[in-house]
Amino acid sequence: MKVKIVEVGPRDGLQNEKDILPSAVKAALINKLAEAGLQTIEASSFVNPRWIPQLADADEVLSTINRAQGVTYTALVPNLRGLERARACGLNEIALFMSASQTHNLKNINKTLEETYPILREVALEALALGMRVRGYVSTVFGCPYEGKVPLDNSRRVTEALLEMGAYEISLGDTIGVATPKQVHDLFRELVKDAPVQRLAGHFHDTRGTGLANVVAAMDVGIRTFDSSIGGLGGCPYAPGAAGNISTEDLIYMLHGMEYETGVDLQKLLEAGAFIQKQLGRDLNSKVLKAHLAAECLAAKDE
Amino acid sequence: MKVKIVEVGPRDGLQNEKDILPSAVKAALINKLAEAGLQTIEASSFVNPRWIPQLADADEVLSTINRAQGVTYTALVPNLRGLERARACGLNEIALFMSASQTHNLKNINKTLEETYPILREVALEALALGMRVRGYVSTVFGCPYEGKVPLDNSRRVTEALLEMGAYEISLGDTIGVATPKQVHDLFRELVKDAPVQRLAGHFHDTRGTGLANVVAAMDVGIRTFDSSIGGLGGCPYAPGAAGNISTEDLIYMLHGMEYETGVDLQKLLEAGAFIQKQLGRDLNSKVLKAHLAAECLAAKDE
Repeated sequence: MKVKIVEVGPRDGLQNEKDILPSAVKAALINKLAEAGLQTIEASSFVNPRWIPQLADADEVLSTINRAQGVTYTALVPNLRGLERARACGLNEIALFMSASQTHNLKNINKTLEETYPILREVALEALALGMRVRGYVSTVFGCPYEGKVPLDNSRRVTEALLEMGAYEISLGDTIGVATPKQVHDLFRELVKDAPVQRLAGHFHDTRGTGLANVVAAMDVGIRTFDSSIGGLGGCPYAPGAAGNISTEDLIYMLHGMEYETGVDLQKLLEAGAFIQKQLGRDLNSKVLKAHLAAECLAAKDE
Repeated sequence: MKVKIVEVGPRDGLQNEKDILPSAVKAALINKLAEAGLQTIEASSFVNPRWIPQLADADEVLSTINRAQGVTYTALVPNLRGLERARACGLNEIALFMSASQTHNLKNINKTLEETYPILREVALEALALGMRVRGYVSTVFGCPYEGKVPLDNSRRVTEALLEMGAYEISLGDTIGVATPKQVHDLFRELVKDAPVQRLAGHFHDTRGTGLANVVAAMDVGIRTFDSSIGGLGGCPYAPGAAGNISTEDLIYMLHGMEYETGVDLQKLLEAGAFIQKQLGRDLNSKVLKAHLAAECLAAKDE
């Protein structure tokens, strides 16, 4: 039994870091993630650099990483200008994004949901014409920082629209980390009535500790693709109080314990986590990384 | 649908804290937990004070707390001497403990499993004769820091022995926090073949981030009683690298989101968490507490 992991640390993770990291550090992180066996890595974002200064060097990062065989490198693309940059970097896949809630969409991309559809459709058509694969994100599925609860119909409508544009996979996001397993189960159970289960993915933030429980709830409905972030990096700069994505280390530990295959080498993954923790100079959220480093520290004392 | 929470923060949580807290702080914490609606509170331990200096003041703490109506106050008891102290404090319930693995039992209570049974049986019989209720703990069910994997038969045998002694409930503990949902599901599915499901409880540590996912896995088998610790305090001083218990705040948040009743007021619970965090002078593990305090901080800035 296999589970697909989409590593979003270099994008969803780093975009929330205030101190700008050198491009070489980002490239080194991405290379370590690929070496650990991650086969889909969201490496950066082609949004306007004024919005997310940390990822202004997307072109530089993507042109300096090793392109490991069998690994898909992808990036966020908001418009045709972003698509042109992604193409110039030689990407084979891009990710489009919008919210399930009107207000979050307005604050995040300065457009209503209705204004967003035609823009993304144009980008998707052009990307497909260029032979690229397109992934879609739906944010604030389980709650919006401005509107509170988000009706399931919103998520259904945005998911359908992105699938119709030609996205091969839609990632449903708990942007502010409010979901509990019941809501996750209920949402996916509804969505799989219309969309093929293998085209849906779960994207959870661990703001309230329910991230991995939500993964298991989605797996109960048959979802087998999850986004996660090395070290548990991440958050949304426009969602107050939002903490990081679920940690890739914790997710891999759990999935392997449940006898799922991920293709990831946990030991190498922990080296990638330790690397970026050292570069950022603070303890990251990943519990498996914490336990690993505590054990290493104890072993060093015993010697 | 109801779930019973056994709050173990004042015992399993605080026993791992090096700096000795004033008895008045412990009593205040226990009172706040009761005010938040927790109906079973493990308040301290009557093990030899040399083993756990932090809980040497068990008698003082238990004699100064408010005894809220409908709340069960309990404490660990290792032997007849401990039982005498518990009786003198007017407790109506005690908790006995042993491990599923031989080496952990030896390191933790200096006796083999076989040597432990008659001692606990004597304490249980005496407690029952005094009209007290007896709860049993089985530690290292999902893994031992010294032996690694622990055979399911060990846990079954210890569980049966404690039930035969007259314990009304057995709490199965992932002492070092290694379990994943599949193991939890498999263990409880096996145990409920022999033991009534309502007499089993789950006790999870969140060392690797799987704590709440493990709760949901146990609930799938019908388990409805869980131990947790305010703020996610806790750990085992004899289990290297072990991090805290699952956080009561996170557990309650998840259960309420899943439409279970717990009788706990999350807002008041967060006040108890903020109180003990302030007393300990460091950030605690509870994610819901972190999110709550971050939101309060942002709200204060906006004013």
